[in-house]
Amino acid sequence: MVDINCDMGEAFSIYRCGDDEGLMPLITLANVACGFHASDPSVMASTVKLAKANGVRVGAHPSLPDREGFGRREMKMDRSELTAAVLYQVGALAAFLRAEGMELNHVKAHGSLYGMAARDEEVAGAIADAADVFGVPLMGMAGTVHEQVWGSRDAGFISEYYADLDYRPDGSLIITRTHAAFDPERSAERAVRAVTDGVATAVDGSEIPVRADCVCVHSDTPNAVELATAVRSALAPHL
Amino acid sequence: MVDINCDMGEAFSIYRCGDDEGLMPLITLANVACGFHASDPSVMASTVKLAKANGVRVGAHPSLPDREGFGRREMKMDRSELTAAVLYQVGALAAFLRAEGMELNHVKAHGSLYGMAARDEEVAGAIADAADVFGVPLMGMAGTVHEQVWGSRDAGFISEYYADLDYRPDGSLIITRTHAAFDPERSAERAVRAVTDGVATAVDGSEIPVRADCVCVHSDTPNAVELATAVRSALAPHL
Amino acid sequence: MVDINCDMGEAFSIYRCGDDEGLMPLITLANVACGFHASDPSVMASTVKLAKANGVRVGAHPSLPDREGFGRREMKMDRSELTAAVLYQVGALAAFLRAEGMELNHVKAHGSLYGMAARDEEVAGAIADAADVFGVPLMGMAGTVHEQVWGSRDAGFISEYYADLDYRPDGSLIITRTHAAFDPERSAERAVRAVTDGVATAVDGSEIPVRADCVCVHSDTPNAVELATAVRSALAPHL
Amino acid sequence: MVDINCDMGEAFSIYRCGDDEGLMPLITLANVACGFHASDPSVMASTVKLAKANGVRVGAHPSLPDREGFGRREMKMDRSELTAAVLYQVGALAAFLRAEGMELNHVKAHGSLYGMAARDEEVAGAIADAADVFGVPLMGMAGTVHEQVWGSRDAGFISEYYADLDYRPDGSLIITRTHAAFDPERSAERAVRAVTDGVATAVDGSEIPVRADCVCVHSDTPNAVELATAVRSALAPHL
Repeated sequence: MVDINCDMGEAFSIYRCGDDEGLMPLITLANVACGFHASDPSVMASTVKLAKANGVRVGAHPSLPDREGFGRREMKMDRSELTAAVLYQVGALAAFLRAEGMELNHVKAHGSLYGMAARDEEVAGAIADAADVFGVPLMGMAGTVHEQVWGSRDAGFISEYYADLDYRPDGSLIITRTHAAFDPERSAERAVRAVTDGVATAVDGSEIPVRADCVCVHSDTPNAVELATAVRSALAPHL
Repeated sequence: MVDINCDMGEAFSIYRCGDDEGLMPLITLANVACGFHASDPSVMASTVKLAKANGVRVGAHPSLPDREGFGRREMKMDRSELTAAVLYQVGALAAFLRAEGMELNHVKAHGSLYGMAARDEEVAGAIADAADVFGVPLMGMAGTVHEQVWGSRDAGFISEYYADLDYRPDGSLIITRTHAAFDPERSAERAVRAVTDGVATAVDGSEIPVRADCVCVHSDTPNAVELATAVRSALAPHL
Repeated sequence: MVDINCDMGEAFSIYRCGDDEGLMPLITLANVACGFHASDPSVMASTVKLAKANGVRVGAHPSLPDREGFGRREMKMDRSELTAAVLYQVGALAAFLRAEGMELNHVKAHGSLYGMAARDEEVAGAIADAADVFGVPLMGMAGTVHEQVWGSRDAGFISEYYADLDYRPDGSLIITRTHAAFDPERSAERAVRAVTDGVATAVDGSEIPVRADCVCVHSDTPNAVELATAVRSALAPHL
Repeated sequence: MVDINCDMGEAFSIYRCGDDEGLMPLITLANVACGFHASDPSVMASTVKLAKANGVRVGAHPSLPDREGFGRREMKMDRSELTAAVLYQVGALAAFLRAEGMELNHVKAHGSLYGMAARDEEVAGAIADAADVFGVPLMGMAGTVHEQVWGSRDAGFISEYYADLDYRPDGSLIITRTHAAFDPERSAERAVRAVTDGVATAVDGSEIPVRADCVCVHSDTPNAVELATAVRSALAPHL
């Protein structure tokens, strides 16, 4: 059993971001932006409705408070203020779920918050403190502080594999401000291999172990729908 | 039975606003700001803890999205985007209550949102749609659209009387950007009279009917604690 | 002599808005967003550079402080705080012009601020007070309070005609949150007729007088570049 | 010849911060907040007017874009986006100066931006690129990257000494989110010694060299006016 997750609802104001309508039917878990790096209340309302219409479970996708930088600029925050910032966002999203009779499924940190939590126990712990209020699992990368801190939580840890990003030989992700197109077939093959064998190929050709409880596709790659369609199709036997 | 309510948690960043520590022991209901006109996640966390420590029930105090104007500048918003904006804020606050094992008690709109809802059925309806998600009563002014729209809700309507603001002969409030000091004894007498007789004296000396399910005191009047102490003491037999 | 103006630099964060690269070579005046409804400092820097590279003169395009609503939600502001808000934005843009050795050419209010100034002398006056600090003309619609208040300024008034929006029989514009595609040939014909004859055709077919010191094309119509190309070509003899 | 500088105009919305009216007559240079960590357009307008009324020269006090954190949380920004962010703020302030017929005197970075620039050449360079557009000196700390990068600029470097903060033996400042009260007499003595002898006493009692082109007092210490009065009086022969 594997899930396919995607960051959703990253539109804002008049701005669109990603083909949420095209992607929602292809995924099983939506990580919905909460207004700090992207989204606004109206976008959150419509994104949750779209997820419901497609039978997709919803998690919160909280960020550092940095809309101008799309949550991709690291910020130093105290542990307690970070917990409060995450809790605020998760609560806001939970209200839109409540309006639709849905339950919060998980929490996945966004952008630099995700990256900082992969390296820093205090950051990971701050996020966990917020997720614990809702008793939901945290989604992240195995082999990092994510797994170390979040893996021991009662509510559990969901390890994700990125079908549309490259990995370094040390297992770390190569994250860029904008996502380049990625070959759909290659992504689909990578996804299946990660799910069935627990192995990925790093940028230098070396093989690295991965744990893929779910496979992540991005909505802001240029060919996101095509890529997600290939991944969905290839993973169909495992969903 | 009457309650004493006060807008709380209106600090922001390094800025303080009102003597929340001094006031919390004197009230029974706290309307806690949700980050749109005032407050931030850290302030919300500490304000909810302070309410809990004082046995004070907590309602959400959502606003138009206008921190720079402290929610005191009217904005035209579509009904659906207004509902979403209020729901976002109520959800955020509800998360801090959940963290403390508390329940959301009510919703009271802030500033211009409160004022617009007193005159405009669409605005009042938009707020009600958000509060209905949580099934809690709305707090407002009897004799206005508040009562007309919110009074018919399943979750109920709480009519408040302002102990520290002047009323016009038509029963409307005189609201200013900053609250002047108000005589504590006069406020206390007014509060008791409103609660027991349902009558207030307008600025022109005329008597007007009021309904005081609860009495509101402000945290940003210069002598807020003194005033709240007098009101609390005078209302003690009715709490 | 006529100018072609277009609102430019309305991207924000990772979000794009309009094909500024495609449009800049087709216009003579760019109204550059200043960060309150759209844009951010990086977008402003690159937009000003792009204008310079194309020999396009630059005006400021200030807005009400409402990024989430893209400046399209009316807000009630005091006259002095509105002047300050506009002055802040104009000054910020002027710094990017200074960095490129360029001069501020004009000020054109955005969205609801533009619309409010067309009806309300206080709003128009507040904007004029800010533009007067820089001694530049204001751009707006003849036949409205724009012309009435701004037309009497020392720095002058630039009347614009909208090639890609419909007019009501009373000469007022039909403004929507998103701009629909508009036939390029029809726009070009309308533009020439407005410039040479001072006449436009309203949505009901009636003819209305217009004054077209410059012709405005929008960057956020779906076929903006095609439309601007047609308008530019048709107006070439008049530029 | 020495100057006394103070961060001014750090109010926001309804929130006050520091006794600007009490301090302005005591200083010669005001570093005026530009809306990113504190202030808003109305506060900027009134602060510049207050400076003018007191014959105080005005510099810009730009910050990282972090109002919630009061500019005291470090953020990673690209060099070009940091330059743009600073230029935006300086330009905005320059407009309020222009409205009063005043000239921009200098730029002093705020909070974490100041601290980061003291350690990081890229950050210091980014700020310098913005200040160079206006051809004004940068204010900072001798013995840090401030002096190294800004000291070689054509527009010059102003070294400031902090009369109301403690120094470590290595010459670095001990900066906290809130400033504690500081003994006025001690501050005044420290200021005179720094100005006349170029020497300060660190927290461990050791003597460290300082360069005091100007002396900084803070507006947010509890006894700011008393302290500034003592410093002003002691430095009178050197102003």
